[in-house]
Amino acid sequence: MTMLYEGKAKQIFSTDNPNEIIIHYKDDATAGNGAKKGTIVNKGVINNKITAIIYNYLESKGVKTHLIEVLNDRDQLCRKVEIVPLEVICRNMVAGSASVRYKIEEGTTLNSPIYEICWKRDDLGDPLINDYHAIAFNLATEDELKKIYKMTDEINRHLSEMWHKLGIILVDFKIEFGRTSDGEIVLADEISPDTCRLWDEKSHEKLDKDRFRRDLGNIEDAYIEILRRLKEL
Amino acid sequence: MTMLYEGKAKQIFSTDNPNEIIIHYKDDATAGNGAKKGTIVNKGVINNKITAIIYNYLESKGVKTHLIEVLNDRDQLCRKVEIVPLEVICRNMVAGSASVRYKIEEGTTLNSPIYEICWKRDDLGDPLINDYHAIAFNLATEDELKKIYKMTDEINRHLSEMWHKLGIILVDFKIEFGRTSDGEIVLADEISPDTCRLWDEKSHEKLDKDRFRRDLGNIEDAYIEILRRLKEL
Repeated sequence: MTMLYEGKAKQIFSTDNPNEIIIHYKDDATAGNGAKKGTIVNKGVINNKITAIIYNYLESKGVKTHLIEVLNDRDQLCRKVEIVPLEVICRNMVAGSASVRYKIEEGTTLNSPIYEICWKRDDLGDPLINDYHAIAFNLATEDELKKIYKMTDEINRHLSEMWHKLGIILVDFKIEFGRTSDGEIVLADEISPDTCRLWDEKSHEKLDKDRFRRDLGNIEDAYIEILRRLKEL
Repeated sequence: MTMLYEGKAKQIFSTDNPNEIIIHYKDDATAGNGAKKGTIVNKGVINNKITAIIYNYLESKGVKTHLIEVLNDRDQLCRKVEIVPLEVICRNMVAGSASVRYKIEEGTTLNSPIYEICWKRDDLGDPLINDYHAIAFNLATEDELKKIYKMTDEINRHLSEMWHKLGIILVDFKIEFGRTSDGEIVLADEISPDTCRLWDEKSHEKLDKDRFRRDLGNIEDAYIEILRRLKEL
């Protein structure tokens, strides 16, 4: 196995099959575009499991993902894709950067979800862009963007409903998409407390990476709690 | 006449007719969201004339504007509108803030024009938003946004052609729209060297407010040159 890429929270390895890769989940945590660095004990093990449960749930609802199977505690076998260089963000409530940028109180419910696309460019700070930028900069085609918004909308509906059953508010989340060798757009990357804001419905307690970003403590417990609830599905 | 509003470059006065206002063009110039302040001698007189020529040209092409008639050197009679709180930007080449934000060399031609909408909020620095934000924050309806993009596209085509005839590249421009009392969307505000980047086709000399923003000198001459060329239309 050759390491093809190392990101902030994961490593990607080649396999004997050119259309498949192995994704290895690390315990490393970063925030603020890498400005803050740390480790969350066993995060890799937990996020591997959480992502697998969610991706299998989404597949059961008809959403195509890159996941083939979980291999062990930290490794997943996935379809090899070319990542579309966009962070796709879905907001059901205002929180985090949107709260700061638009001076809107964190926790404000939106009349309609906000979908944002950001250009995956660490050197630019992953800036917000719109569809015209994405097309002019050759990041995605118009057809791909249509497909991506449609899939994001479906994913938001399915996951909001799923989390609600488990007593959790899906405040916002970030996803990424990939192009398979035959040009299909599939959900790639991960969905976990690293990439979502998840609040307990009753207490509004944060059960996600904001505990790390904002030094709220009990970080590992939050990730374990999310996995525990998902197992009730 | 009562002053209804004073902006950075214009004053708005009421008239006896509740559906009409007078717009008074000042010589004041600002840049960087008001961080830099100055005066460009006779700018108000020149921009009043420039905007009138351009708006009459656009009306002749079927684009609805707020302009009724020029009253004198600094005043225009216009339809009273409720301004849609968006700065609509059209970019044919990368320049200014887009060049900085995306680290793309100023003057790079785009494969397809980029349209941007920014929330008119001085306290937020007029941030870039997308259609989902505009709808969720009740800034415009989906129908209004469609109409605004369609009109912006038409305006860009007509003005790019017009400026090309006069030996000028329309690099980018900012426009604003208003809702009339009967709910029609019309082009409002102004179109002038204050709100466009205009480069001489041969020399690429800047004939717009960048001469003020960047302390390039000969500011008044640039505005006069633009008016001179427009009179050749």
